[in-house]
Amino acid sequence: MLKARIFVELKPSVLDPQGKAVTNSLNTLGYNQVADTRISKYIEILFSEGSEDEVNRQVEEICNKLLANPNTEHYHYTIEQAEYS
Amino acid sequence: MLKARIFVELKPSVLDPQGKAVTNSLNTLGYNQVADTRISKYIEILFSEGSEDEVNRQVEEICNKLLANPNTEHYHYTIEQAEYS
Repeated sequence: MLKARIFVELKPSVLDPQGKAVTNSLNTLGYNQVADTRISKYIEILFSEGSEDEVNRQVEEICNKLLANPNTEHYHYTIEQAEYS
Repeated sequence: MLKARIFVELKPSVLDPQGKAVTNSLNTLGYNQVADTRISKYIEILFSEGSEDEVNRQVEEICNKLLANPNTEHYHYTIEQAEYS
């Protein structure tokens, strides 16, 4: 089985209001050294079969079609062997 | 500057309805090899100062107090040097 570990992140130029809110909360709580926070999605997809090349092609499609908004987000991923019972 | 890279994930025993929905969507779209999907939060926090020990202690507190729900989620993180301009 192969597992894709996918990160979907806001582009650096796009404001992250949720991250900004966390930074403000943390500063208010006394964590004054917190300068910036970025909140992203981390997605693991488990594939029951398929070669690494095929899974790679499918993950690329899946990110473009479903997981990432190309206007505001970019993504990167790795594919690795997974042992699931 | 130090950067904390934090993963907040649902515990394996907790149902992930959002992940389930993505698995179903992908199967419907023809990606029949997709067996399971888990969706988590990935958070980067940038610290303007502080030793690695101090940042480590603060990240532990921040995860417990603000980022993770201890009933349903667990977290893990790494801390690394960051070069931000």
